[in-house]
Amino acid sequence: MTQWVYAFGEGKADGNAAMKDLLGGKGANLAEMSALGLPVPPGFTLTTDACNYFTSHDDTYPDGFRDDVAAALKAVEKNLGLNFGDPDNVLLVSVRSGSRASMPGMMDTVLNLGLNDDTVAGLASASGDERFAYDSYRRFIQMYGDVVLGVEHHNFEDILADAKDKLGVELDTELTAENWRDVIEDYMEMVEGELGRPFPQDPEEQLWGAIDAVFKSWMNRRARTYRKLHDIPEDWGTAVNVQAMVFGNMGDDCATGVAFTRDPASGENAYYGEYLINAQGEDVVAGIRTPQSLTIREREMGGSKLPSMEETMPDAFAELLAVRARLEKHYKDMQDMEFTVQQGRLWMLQTRTGKRTTKAAIKIAVDMVAEDLIDISEAIMRIDPGQLDQILHPTLDPAAERELLGKGLPASPGAASGRMVFNSDDAEEWTGRGEKVILVRIETSPEDIGGMHVAKGILTTRGGMTSHAAVVARGMGTPCVSGAGTLKVDYTDKTMTVMGEVLGEGDLITIDGTSGEVMKGAVATIQPDLSDDFDTLMGWVDDTRTIGVRANAETPTDAATAREFGAEGIGLCRTEHMFFDSERIIHVRQMIIADTPESRAKALDALLPYQRKDFTDLFEIMDGLPVTIRLLDPPLHEFLPSSESDMADVAKAAGVTVDVVKARAAQLHEFNPMLGHRGCRLGLTYPDIYEMQARAIFEATADAVKAGRTVMPEVMVPLVALEAEFTVLKNVIDRTAKQVEKEHDVTLDYSVGTMIELPRAALRAADIAKHAEFFSFGTNDLTQTALGLSRDDAGAFIQIYREQGVLEKDPFVSIDTEGVGELVRIAIERGRTSRPDIKLGICGEHGGDPASVKFFHDSGLDYVSCSPYRVPIARLAAAQAALA
Amino acid sequence: MTQWVYAFGEGKADGNAAMKDLLGGKGANLAEMSALGLPVPPGFTLTTDACNYFTSHDDTYPDGFRDDVAAALKAVEKNLGLNFGDPDNVLLVSVRSGSRASMPGMMDTVLNLGLNDDTVAGLASASGDERFAYDSYRRFIQMYGDVVLGVEHHNFEDILADAKDKLGVELDTELTAENWRDVIEDYMEMVEGELGRPFPQDPEEQLWGAIDAVFKSWMNRRARTYRKLHDIPEDWGTAVNVQAMVFGNMGDDCATGVAFTRDPASGENAYYGEYLINAQGEDVVAGIRTPQSLTIREREMGGSKLPSMEETMPDAFAELLAVRARLEKHYKDMQDMEFTVQQGRLWMLQTRTGKRTTKAAIKIAVDMVAEDLIDISEAIMRIDPGQLDQILHPTLDPAAERELLGKGLPASPGAASGRMVFNSDDAEEWTGRGEKVILVRIETSPEDIGGMHVAKGILTTRGGMTSHAAVVARGMGTPCVSGAGTLKVDYTDKTMTVMGEVLGEGDLITIDGTSGEVMKGAVATIQPDLSDDFDTLMGWVDDTRTIGVRANAETPTDAATAREFGAEGIGLCRTEHMFFDSERIIHVRQMIIADTPESRAKALDALLPYQRKDFTDLFEIMDGLPVTIRLLDPPLHEFLPSSESDMADVAKAAGVTVDVVKARAAQLHEFNPMLGHRGCRLGLTYPDIYEMQARAIFEATADAVKAGRTVMPEVMVPLVALEAEFTVLKNVIDRTAKQVEKEHDVTLDYSVGTMIELPRAALRAADIAKHAEFFSFGTNDLTQTALGLSRDDAGAFIQIYREQGVLEKDPFVSIDTEGVGELVRIAIERGRTSRPDIKLGICGEHGGDPASVKFFHDSGLDYVSCSPYRVPIARLAAAQAALA
Repeated sequence: MTQWVYAFGEGKADGNAAMKDLLGGKGANLAEMSALGLPVPPGFTLTTDACNYFTSHDDTYPDGFRDDVAAALKAVEKNLGLNFGDPDNVLLVSVRSGSRASMPGMMDTVLNLGLNDDTVAGLASASGDERFAYDSYRRFIQMYGDVVLGVEHHNFEDILADAKDKLGVELDTELTAENWRDVIEDYMEMVEGELGRPFPQDPEEQLWGAIDAVFKSWMNRRARTYRKLHDIPEDWGTAVNVQAMVFGNMGDDCATGVAFTRDPASGENAYYGEYLINAQGEDVVAGIRTPQSLTIREREMGGSKLPSMEETMPDAFAELLAVRARLEKHYKDMQDMEFTVQQGRLWMLQTRTGKRTTKAAIKIAVDMVAEDLIDISEAIMRIDPGQLDQILHPTLDPAAERELLGKGLPASPGAASGRMVFNSDDAEEWTGRGEKVILVRIETSPEDIGGMHVAKGILTTRGGMTSHAAVVARGMGTPCVSGAGTLKVDYTDKTMTVMGEVLGEGDLITIDGTSGEVMKGAVATIQPDLSDDFDTLMGWVDDTRTIGVRANAETPTDAATAREFGAEGIGLCRTEHMFFDSERIIHVRQMIIADTPESRAKALDALLPYQRKDFTDLFEIMDGLPVTIRLLDPPLHEFLPSSESDMADVAKAAGVTVDVVKARAAQLHEFNPMLGHRGCRLGLTYPDIYEMQARAIFEATADAVKAGRTVMPEVMVPLVALEAEFTVLKNVIDRTAKQVEKEHDVTLDYSVGTMIELPRAALRAADIAKHAEFFSFGTNDLTQTALGLSRDDAGAFIQIYREQGVLEKDPFVSIDTEGVGELVRIAIERGRTSRPDIKLGICGEHGGDPASVKFFHDSGLDYVSCSPYRVPIARLAAAQAALA
Repeated sequence: MTQWVYAFGEGKADGNAAMKDLLGGKGANLAEMSALGLPVPPGFTLTTDACNYFTSHDDTYPDGFRDDVAAALKAVEKNLGLNFGDPDNVLLVSVRSGSRASMPGMMDTVLNLGLNDDTVAGLASASGDERFAYDSYRRFIQMYGDVVLGVEHHNFEDILADAKDKLGVELDTELTAENWRDVIEDYMEMVEGELGRPFPQDPEEQLWGAIDAVFKSWMNRRARTYRKLHDIPEDWGTAVNVQAMVFGNMGDDCATGVAFTRDPASGENAYYGEYLINAQGEDVVAGIRTPQSLTIREREMGGSKLPSMEETMPDAFAELLAVRARLEKHYKDMQDMEFTVQQGRLWMLQTRTGKRTTKAAIKIAVDMVAEDLIDISEAIMRIDPGQLDQILHPTLDPAAERELLGKGLPASPGAASGRMVFNSDDAEEWTGRGEKVILVRIETSPEDIGGMHVAKGILTTRGGMTSHAAVVARGMGTPCVSGAGTLKVDYTDKTMTVMGEVLGEGDLITIDGTSGEVMKGAVATIQPDLSDDFDTLMGWVDDTRTIGVRANAETPTDAATAREFGAEGIGLCRTEHMFFDSERIIHVRQMIIADTPESRAKALDALLPYQRKDFTDLFEIMDGLPVTIRLLDPPLHEFLPSSESDMADVAKAAGVTVDVVKARAAQLHEFNPMLGHRGCRLGLTYPDIYEMQARAIFEATADAVKAGRTVMPEVMVPLVALEAEFTVLKNVIDRTAKQVEKEHDVTLDYSVGTMIELPRAALRAADIAKHAEFFSFGTNDLTQTALGLSRDDAGAFIQIYREQGVLEKDPFVSIDTEGVGELVRIAIERGRTSRPDIKLGICGEHGGDPASVKFFHDSGLDYVSCSPYRVPIARLAAAQAALA
């Protein structure tokens, strides 16, 4: 026979912590604590199965259900020596919902159930406090009237306000027992007027009303909408917990508090918590009274004058200390508990896994391994990879004052202060004079790269999480706030206006790319300090994971950072980033303006030594590790100047008129540059560009080999859609390699592969793999093309999509496993049919997203590549994927 | 044992016409004619297998091969009573290559082989014409020297030029036998000087030299490149045909000519041809002498004074007449023959299927069915669907004079004359006053729709075959030349400059969208006149095909044209095309500018009656046929004005400032509009727009139902990538339908489906088909996204791709079956797993491309939909696909 009711309390329980599906999170943990022998007020849980029965049987209960509940209630009465509805010996209960997942929108809690005109008197005499009793009663009427009976909240508020008006008082605390009695009378009258029947005086009727209300609330509109948005199945149902009330506010031998078994900020293995004497749970949370420390240690560290619980209630504290030891040993994790002391006796009301900072999470995990509480795998699984970002970047000093100017999107984590500049040139100039700057733009473009490189932080008023500014900033590890729409930027005046206040060039601001906040002035920041615990953890991580982690990097700084953070090579070196350097851009532009192969050759010859030097530097830093170099990818118009003066410079250098430059720019204009003349299409139409790049790579390789370094360049052709695109360009690359081998008398160890970033390439992977030695999935472009969604333009509607539940996650942040993911799987499967040992990696933004890393691990890729600052995140995510 | 040598002649042959793979096209047909008993100069064919052996065995021949050739040659000698190399009785031969497919780049022909210093004298006496003999000899040396021995052509030219200089003559014909002897002497000396050995005098050595040269030419660079470009496998090989020479230039009882068994222009069942007395085959082609008619009928029709062959050589003609009958009966198709009369005797040198105009092709096919020569299926297969375009549009009068201004791409077929206008407003204004105009633009945009609609033709100086101008013009059946880059257009001056000549507004020009030519003035055109034969053929076509053909149309004119051309419904009605009408655009713009739901509602209310009227008109024209209506698709910024004055109009109408309009335009700007805020994304962010459109559709349906018409609206949601996009919008549509049903008290028969035009939609078709009642493949966008290729921007490199052989066909013209096609197949397969009877169509540009239609037929689609003028093409292609 189905068991619908699970009792707990008195050192035993029908359920346990593993039964969350049936008893909900709260019910399961109450049962677990009871069974552990901890002092839990007795009660019982009505199962989620009962909820499902109720829902599917026109709001009725299974046979015998009411008898089971009555029996369970009897057991509670017997356990406590109290009786439900007995004025002389009154048992009050709380009724709480509790589903498998925490879920707003459902009925939450009714306290003090069982009070009526008779029992309230009993509570008054039992507590010796009449005011307490009537205050409790009116609270119950209000709560029950609102959530169970459906009387609108404002009806109660109005009565209370009138009463206070009449009495000439302002605070609820000023009302006496007598006053509350009057209010209760008015409440009762009003409820009867609203409902056409009196407020239920029968405790049993009250109980069933509350239980019905919880079960019904599972199907109300808000709950249904929430479930749809969060993919929670309807048939999970909710449980109902009925539990004897205990009171922390019956006098000075009463208290209530919360405690963490370890310090949730530092992770220190020490009790940490707060309590209040003669108070209810809400009072601690509400912050009306200043809570006191749990321990002497805490009190001393905090410099508080208020005595700790260790001092004021040594017996209850000792009991609590025993509970702590018991719970940690049992749950093997840091716990967050709620407790109440009623007339000297400790009652545990809740325990759950405690939230903690990343720093604390790491310390606790590492400590618990040392304490033999958990093993290394468990320690690894304990850390949320996404949270690691917190400790890898500078953060705002929590103690510092801050004056908020506005808020945008947390586009690239970390905090930074600096003087505002409004364009890239100014950023470089100000930095040149030793100033720290924040680059403020409406939006950024590749032309701004110079300024973005030197700026301490980047702020844009337009663009989303995957705008140019956001992507580039994350790649460089520079803090960035994007899309701060309430700030108005004027490039001409070089001002930023916030609610009427105008800030100008040179004014100090601070941005927090972790929260999206923009603040006035310089707010103090704290530099990241990676602990020994971090190193320990990452050591375990590397021993555990099976998928490699590389970094996307092109500058020596980024490459060095990447290696420090544990990158095992470069998975994406974007050669075009090297083109924007101020010394070089003029040659790049000359190359583009060139109208004969000869003049283009001249410009390319000028670029060759720069590009070779880039690779020489990279190869030195990445000695012994593979470096994947992507040949020129963006459309040429991205390199052309937009300002008249820059155009004049280019015209002069190229020996043509400004009109020629403008005409060339107009000619290169594209309607959809993302789908335009870029990637390998450039290589096929201007093979000399790719040839120059290949030469630079191979000459640098030859030099490095002669210098005794181990270099493994992987030359990567972007945006391939057709087998022939790849074969033609592979020929160009191989031919150049042969020439360099001959010129330098060395043997070059290199491979040639391609990006898989177009749906067609994924589908035709078998053809392409006949020639390509590796694939690197460009999941940014693959997402753009598979979904027909421009990363730069999606901001206009993607938020609405997420609000409507049409899209769960931003597909540019976490890979769309169903669509884009299927293309990845298809490409892997087909690629391997022609080349079983083909090397497979991914170098899109998704390489640093934990959920995506799991997908790539499961798909069997050899490595992921992400921005240097996300390398530790990817390593951890990879280890977790291996353990999952 | 492998047979390497196949003899023919003397009324029999080892091979036949079916053996093209082994004998090449020429060899197989010579064999066939021989076996038919036609007078073919005897000879033999060396097989393609021999070629492959030669190629794969270091240019050597199989054992016994030389003996087989010798024996075959003996047989020819015996047959004719002549001897190879015998001055007294000389046999000369031609050596020709002949592969399965006609293939430039290979060695073609050596004539008169067997001539040497001795045999030339024999030829002189046999022909009685010494000059003829020596001229033949020097031609042989020249030809053999060039193509077999590799002596550069100019060497021969130089000697001949010198000789003529010395003699003071200008024409070759002025040289005497003696002169030729001198030239030959110089040739011989030069050849020996170039090669270090004398010109081969041994006929057998000559023969083997020529055979070697043909086989070797199969592997030369030009041939290899050509094969790669045309996907011809290397192992096809070429055959070699060695055949006895016959001469049409031995005197007045000799002649040479070509003949078609039916009139290749009209298709008339009458002999048609030309001949020249005392001439060689080249003379007919070269056009130095005016050829004479074959028949009296022809001579009289052409008004020629020169006698026909029927008159001058009645015997040979009678023989030729018999050949005609024999060949047509045998080949069951119109033949194109070459013949020679040597000293009164007819020799057939070649027969092949004759080329013909579309009109002739249709007439011949229909006639041959009536004549019981072929069946209906064969008649259908005989017509090239692509060629049908020729007869559906006006064409230039071939007799009219034309002055060419320039050439662009043949973007939309048909010819048109009119006065030049340079913008849409002018086009409408000039048309309003009764002028015919050609709209001349650098490129067009959706704003130009009004002018494009009224213009007789469209000319752009930029953009490719799939530019906006090209696509829209084809849809409207308006002639269009796009990308005529040598013409310079100046909008400000309203001029078009061509090589210094300036033409202005109002000047007459003519464009031919079939050839891409642009001409000065009005060139006379001929209106298409569809024959009864055409109707007969299309009747057979419709009985044969199994895939439906619909049209893409939104205007009443287009819909009526479509129905006339046999469309079985509308497969794509683009509702946004209706938005550009000058009366409506202001409301559309107001709707876009609207910053509150109320002001948007006002604009939408104003649009509703217009949109409803559109559908009412369409439903009337398409009574009884299905109409698929696509809800708003393009990004909103396409509707916004660009000129200051238009912006002012919108601002005034919307009651806002011009700055607000500009700001809204700036806000709507997109980097990649193709991948931006469009399609169903508009429906999700502005559901009221789709609601208005759905209401217009359903109200028009309700009216039509009440008027007794049969209406089957299929409401189509564009650009779906996610299942939820479709379900949310289907709800909006269904809800609106229910409202209209209630308001009008009718039951509506409609369906709701989606475009499949994004790779993700194809991959997730099983999910989407759970809700969608039909799929229509949007292969334009599917091509853009699968290949990551913007239709508007691909022009910059797609031509280079095709030249390099990287891309065989423009994927926007003919579907990329490997990539895009696979997505179509995946979507069909997966869609049917959730909805086995899902209706499947395609409405991209590919719906009118024959190769693509075949693919769609094979894939199992229910229908294709194309522009009205391509409906007959699609019908024919569909019938051919069904027969294939």
